[in-house]
Parts: sequence; structure tokens; C-alpha cells
Amino acid sequence: MQHTPPDLPPMKDLTIENITENVHIINSKCDKPRLKFLINTLVTHLHDYARETRLSTEEWEQAISFLVAVGRISTEVRHEFVLLSDILGLSLLVDAINHPKLPAATEGTVLGPFHTLDAEHIKQGDTISHDPDGIALFGVCSIKNSSGKPMAGVEVDVWETDSKGFYDVQYEDRTGPDGRAVLVSDEEGMIYFKAIVPVPYPIPHDGPVGKLLGSLKRHPYRPSHMHFMFKKEGFDRLITALYLRGDPYETSDAVFGVKESLIIELKKVGDVEGLSEKHGVSPDTVLLQHDFVLITDEESMQVRTEEAWKAAKMADKDLTVVDGLLVPLD
Amino acid sequence: MQHTPPDLPPMKDLTIENITENVHIINSKCDKPRLKFLINTLVTHLHDYARETRLSTEEWEQAISFLVAVGRISTEVRHEFVLLSDILGLSLLVDAINHPKLPAATEGTVLGPFHTLDAEHIKQGDTISHDPDGIALFGVCSIKNSSGKPMAGVEVDVWETDSKGFYDVQYEDRTGPDGRAVLVSDEEGMIYFKAIVPVPYPIPHDGPVGKLLGSLKRHPYRPSHMHFMFKKEGFDRLITALYLRGDPYETSDAVFGVKESLIIELKKVGDVEGLSEKHGVSPDTVLLQHDFVLITDEESMQVRTEEAWKAAKMADKDLTVVDGLLVPLD
Repeated sequence: MQHTPPDLPPMKDLTIENITENVHIINSKCDKPRLKFLINTLVTHLHDYARETRLSTEEWEQAISFLVAVGRISTEVRHEFVLLSDILGLSLLVDAINHPKLPAATEGTVLGPFHTLDAEHIKQGDTISHDPDGIALFGVCSIKNSSGKPMAGVEVDVWETDSKGFYDVQYEDRTGPDGRAVLVSDEEGMIYFKAIVPVPYPIPHDGPVGKLLGSLKRHPYRPSHMHFMFKKEGFDRLITALYLRGDPYETSDAVFGVKESLIIELKKVGDVEGLSEKHGVSPDTVLLQHDFVLITDEESMQVRTEEAWKAAKMADKDLTVVDGLLVPLD
Repeated sequence: MQHTPPDLPPMKDLTIENITENVHIINSKCDKPRLKFLINTLVTHLHDYARETRLSTEEWEQAISFLVAVGRISTEVRHEFVLLSDILGLSLLVDAINHPKLPAATEGTVLGPFHTLDAEHIKQGDTISHDPDGIALFGVCSIKNSSGKPMAGVEVDVWETDSKGFYDVQYEDRTGPDGRAVLVSDEEGMIYFKAIVPVPYPIPHDGPVGKLLGSLKRHPYRPSHMHFMFKKEGFDRLITALYLRGDPYETSDAVFGVKESLIIELKKVGDVEGLSEKHGVSPDTVLLQHDFVLITDEESMQVRTEEAWKAAKMADKDLTVVDGLLVPLD
């Protein structure tokens, strides 16, 4: 084979100080500005990290082995890299960046590693959980747009653990979905469903991420919560959860998902006039009631673009915003 | 199960701005100062990265999928995470930090993903490569300590590709080691071996790391080189390689391994008087000649500690040095 030298500025004698610049030089032929920006910024941070900590060869080897272990345990239903991102606070941060808080809209939070695509579609008032040991709960939620108009036809994914704190996918003998379902909001923008009162539970901690939590002397618990995902054409997909006020892990969630605006107080069905009779649910049943507000794709893009421009102006490089994403000005 | 709240300062309403501090709070119980420092510094850089790039949810998902793919292709003989670290310049940087250049000593470079533990021990003058298509080469290397004294009994691992640019482990039908061997230096601190002239070769680019290189419009080639690893009780393990002057990829190595002090010019055995006769090697045979200098563990620890103290003084936190490693002052 004939080899011809590539058309690149030659890299100089590589040292602790000049390696970063030289990796940027070798990446300079990349014709995707956003990718080049993402990789070069990553390289800068990785190198600064190694320089600031003076990472030892042994620690680097341990980090490589850890990443291999995280990859090896990953499957279609065990998302160990998502879990790693979660316990480092990265997932919450990425969500916060991409779904800036608007006074009018419901805040998002971490998706977590337990959402599946096989949840059954159920009718209004049906149950999402078949666990006989759970405390029965009735859910009544409204969905509105940012002008306060009820939204019909929103697809709502709801998922939670069983009363022992496990999602269906954590059981090896799982035969089908449970503790999860998809509903569609009615003409008044409402969904009604039966479920069980959420309980605190540990994230899966029998793998490499659990071992890391142990070394950090961190507990693996999440406070009691119920997950929700809202989808409707033209609207920004909302991934969120509701948390129970007073949970022992309310202020130390292992994956940093709790937000003040998402903490709710449970009531009784009997507290709301007519609810028990209308839905044939005992007045003693625990009631989960919440009003969700979705924003459109346009509203979301607008606020993300505004936030991106703010970040561009604060950066020490010349950046611009394309499709809501930061890229360097050439 | 009874749950009691952990003894931790409560985390506040988590936002783009305060999430980093809050991850540090939840890590504050860790009783291993170096681990806590490594993880908290990692969290700071990860978060700064996401904030500076305003990483989108889609990009985060792609990054997670990429890491899973890198983990899944990894095996005992395919080290894709090492390769990823190599092409990002991290491996070279970690080596440079841990093996600071001393005027007296041979510089190190990247280990690469192809070292194995099953290389055969051979006698002085034996061959490390059985590839009949390679151009024959005779290796004559001296090994000395930093005062210039020849070192006997040093275990030297030597490895290279075959004439097609593949390591033995890249062949699916590999039955045993080839293109690699372990020698022990004689009383005069010398090793002599037969091998073949190294050729440029691509790093494995049929996996996720190769795909990334493609997206970055980077070539996957390494310039021609031969790997060496030196081990002797009491001495700092030296991992290095020798590169051939004038290689087409001399200044654009895909994994940033080339250092000026490691580039050599090949000669002929006949250029050195008496060599041909003494070893029964034709004077036309290509000669690879190099003098290596090893430093002791003590010398290495001393220079690393000095460098660590310099880094500690330049940091904006209060840091100290324990066993050559930076840790925060509490």
C-alpha cells in the first residue's frame, strides 16, 4: 500500500501542555461544526481533568475497567450508562438545559432507566398496577397548554414501581408490562387512572454504578414518585415525575430528580366533591391530583434559542446559535 | 422497610446553576479523599461541559448509545475504551503526567491496545516475528540506569505488527503469540533480537471508535513503530516505542504517540564494525539500534511528587500531595 501524508499542520513534540491543541489540530478537518465543537470541548475538559487531578496510570486503568464493566452489564432493559449519568447529576442537568423552566409550564425531570415502549394502552379509569399489596390510589390529572386551554388527545405514559419498590423489568420472570400504562386525555384534557401509592426504592445497585455509590458512601434510594411522559404532535415532549412531600429521601435523591414544583401532597378521593360517586371509587381511596401544563415545540425552541444566545454571549469563544444549538463562528 | 433520612445537608431545588454543588454535597460522606477529589472534579468538568455546549437531549442519548457500543465490543483482546482514550489524546497525556521527561531517561509513550501477557520468552538473538513477507531487521539495544551503568536482568517485552500491519491478536484464527516476545538483558545490559521492519497500520476502525474517527474526517493510521516495555524490580516500568524517521504519518499519528526523542533512523548491520560476524547476521540486514535509560521507582516518585506540588500550588483549591497524588486539604 502507498501512503501519502495527510494535508494537516504537523503536530509538534507532544507534551502535557500542547497535547490539547494538537488533538484540536487533528480534528480540524471535521466538516460538521457542531460535532467538532462537541468533541473539541470534550477533549479540553478531559485533558484539563487529567492535568488538574494529575490522574495516575493506575487510576486511568481503573476508570477504563469501570467503563468496560458498565458497558458489559448494559442490555435493552438495564441502562447502566443512563444510571451513571443519573448519579453524577448529568441527566438532570441536560434535562434542565433542554427544558428551561417557564413560569407557565410544568418542569421536567430525569427519565430514569425504567421507561419501556411496551406499556399497554388503557381506558380512562383503568388500573396501571396489578399489585395487590400496594395501597390503592386514584389519579386525576389535567393537561393544559400555556394559555390554560385543556388539551385533548395527549398520550400520557405513566409508570411506577410495585409495593416492594421494583419495576416490572427488574423481575427476571417478567411476562409483560405492569406498573405502567398509556392513557389518552379526554375532551376536557383529563386523565383518570388507578394505581398504587409510590414507595421509596433503591436504584439497581448490584452493578458497577452501585459499587461506585458504595465507595462514595452514598445511599442508592430514590424518594417515592410516579413517572409521567406527555406526547402530542406540535408540543415539546414532557418527561417528568411527581414526588410525595415528606419522603425520607426528599432532599437526598440518589439521582437528583426532585424539584420543589413537582412535590405534591396526597389527598383522599372524598376530599373532592362528587369524585367518589362519578368514578365509583371509595372516598377513603388516596387521591393523586395534579395539573400539568405543556408548551409547544415553537415555545420550547424559542426559549432554548434565547438561553443558547445568552450562553453564546457569556462564552470566551465566538459562538453562534443554529437550530437552537451552539456552534463556533468560523 | 423503615426508612430514616440520611444525615446530609438537604439539597435545594436543583437547577442548571446549583446542581454541581449539590452533587458535591451528596458525595461529601465519602471517606477516601483521593476518590472524592477525582469524582467531584469529574462532576465539575462534566457539568461545565454540558453547560458550555448546552448539550441537547438527543446528543446525550447518542453519547450514551456510543458508550454502550464501545463497552459491548470490548473483550480481553479488543480494548475499545483504551482506543477511545488513545484517539482523544488522553492516554498520551496520562503517560506524560506519570512519567515526566527527565533529561537522563527514555521518554514513555502510549501502551496501545495490543499488548498481551502471553508472549514467549526467547533467547538473545532469537526472532520475535515469523512473518516471511517482512523485511528482516536486527535489533541491538542497550539498557542503562540514570548514572549510565548497564542494567542486567531487565525483562523487555517487544511487540510489532506483521508486514500487513496487523497484530497477531487481530487474526481470528490466532493459535498463539507472534510478532512479540520477552527478552532479558545480558550482563552488559544488552538485548539482541531478530524482527521485521515496522510498517504503518490503521488502528482497528471497524467499531464505534473507527466510526467516530470517520465522522471527524480523521485517518486511522499510526506511523511505523516497534513497542517496548521494560520491567525490573525497583525501577519505574517504562512503556515506550521507537518510530521511524520519515514515515508518512510521522506528524499525524491517530493516537498521538510520536515523540521527537523516540524517532530513530534505521541503519544496516554492516554499518557497525564486527556486528555481522559476532551475530552471524548478513551486513545488508536492516539495523535498529537504540540506547534506553531507565529510572528507579524512587527517582520516578521524586519527580512526580515535585510535579504534583507544582500543580498543587497552581490550583485554585487548597491541595496537598500524598503518595505522589493530589488530594484536597481538609
